[in-house]
Amino acid sequence: MALPIFTDEHESSDFKICHDRVELRTEKRVQFIDITELVLERVRRAGISHGVVNIQTKHTTTAVVLNENEPHLLRDFEERLDVWAPRDGSYHHNNLEARRFQRISPDEKPNGDAHARALILGASETMNVIASQVELGEWQRLFFVELDGPRSRKISILAMGTSVV
Amino acid sequence: MALPIFTDEHESSDFKICHDRVELRTEKRVQFIDITELVLERVRRAGISHGVVNIQTKHTTTAVVLNENEPHLLRDFEERLDVWAPRDGSYHHNNLEARRFQRISPDEKPNGDAHARALILGASETMNVIASQVELGEWQRLFFVELDGPRSRKISILAMGTSVV
Amino acid sequence: MALPIFTDEHESSDFKICHDRVELRTEKRVQFIDITELVLERVRRAGISHGVVNIQTKHTTTAVVLNENEPHLLRDFEERLDVWAPRDGSYHHNNLEARRFQRISPDEKPNGDAHARALILGASETMNVIASQVELGEWQRLFFVELDGPRSRKISILAMGTSVV
Repeated sequence: MALPIFTDEHESSDFKICHDRVELRTEKRVQFIDITELVLERVRRAGISHGVVNIQTKHTTTAVVLNENEPHLLRDFEERLDVWAPRDGSYHHNNLEARRFQRISPDEKPNGDAHARALILGASETMNVIASQVELGEWQRLFFVELDGPRSRKISILAMGTSVV
Repeated sequence: MALPIFTDEHESSDFKICHDRVELRTEKRVQFIDITELVLERVRRAGISHGVVNIQTKHTTTAVVLNENEPHLLRDFEERLDVWAPRDGSYHHNNLEARRFQRISPDEKPNGDAHARALILGASETMNVIASQVELGEWQRLFFVELDGPRSRKISILAMGTSVV
Repeated sequence: MALPIFTDEHESSDFKICHDRVELRTEKRVQFIDITELVLERVRRAGISHGVVNIQTKHTTTAVVLNENEPHLLRDFEERLDVWAPRDGSYHHNNLEARRFQRISPDEKPNGDAHARALILGASETMNVIASQVELGEWQRLFFVELDGPRSRKISILAMGTSVV
């Protein structure tokens, strides 16, 4: 019979799930907001030993990403995103006249660039949890990325795994 | 001792997993197919209270993404993807002569662009499930993205979490 | 009452989690390393029947992606990434003089391009596990993507789900 190959195994009949919705008020049109501590503290106190935490945005012009929190680098990211989907580019989505028969948000702004940027950054991040600690490399930080702010935004954070005995 | 910080906690000895493979027939080379209802209905009926649902494509020229279902916006997305990896660009992968010693799919078409587009969109999306409802913002819809159609495609949908008592 | 709609359902009071950290030594600056077998073998031997496996990098200049392992295609991917964030492009992050008051890694190299590339590829991949097998399409392979090598790297692999009885 094949031997186990994982170095770390946990079996339990007590399974736990913790969930929270966090509301943020963003301050700029494009903003990388470091939410690492917010997530880490929730997981530390969740009473979950091993499992995952999934961080999901509830918006289509925002994203959740892992990278380094270095201010010059965040400017580089903004510049790269502006090449991919320029702020002053031409977007069918921005033609409100062509969309006059659609349901449109009362605070709709021309934001085709923001949607296109969100598309490649991704709406969620799933991270492993080991011994009540989120797996996080030395330089890794978790960001909520605002791409069409300032606005009020909601993030859904769900941790699940074996219960701490 | 630290107090819990999650607003919502569930502990259970009944853990449930539901899985389905859904087959789709796509109709165009590039197509954003809204699979939100397909996923939501499965989760509603799964008998799972709190957990996650992971939606994963089984192909390398397709993707799974969350964004808004607005037809003009989907055209914008196609145009952005065509800048990133042009349909008529030059791809080593399209040189079938250079790949003559490889195993190649019998229906292989020049599709380097489709692979490159799939690469940045991502093959899966993990969404939180709260009280048997998928966490979904007002404008968020889940898309299966065909990038090399028309073809027959398979999606794997797995929901896991605490069982509804 | 609504009937279940998932084709495959599993309920269990035995929930299992297996975790491993794998260390890799990469050999080139940019390298797509096929880690499919490494993950598949761990899941096969984990004693987990149904669930998910989440593969997460612990670095900010690497990524985890699903695509086809075709050498010409991997060259195409490198070329596309070099358009998105050119190796010899201009990055604020590379200006070490401007960052002289920051904590900086002793082996810091000019790597703004590598961070920007990692940003759109993503730091993790979540795959479904059915009957102790990872859901994987015929051409799908899992890659660890080195973008600032050669370096020593760590990957976190966590499988969770119902225990094989």
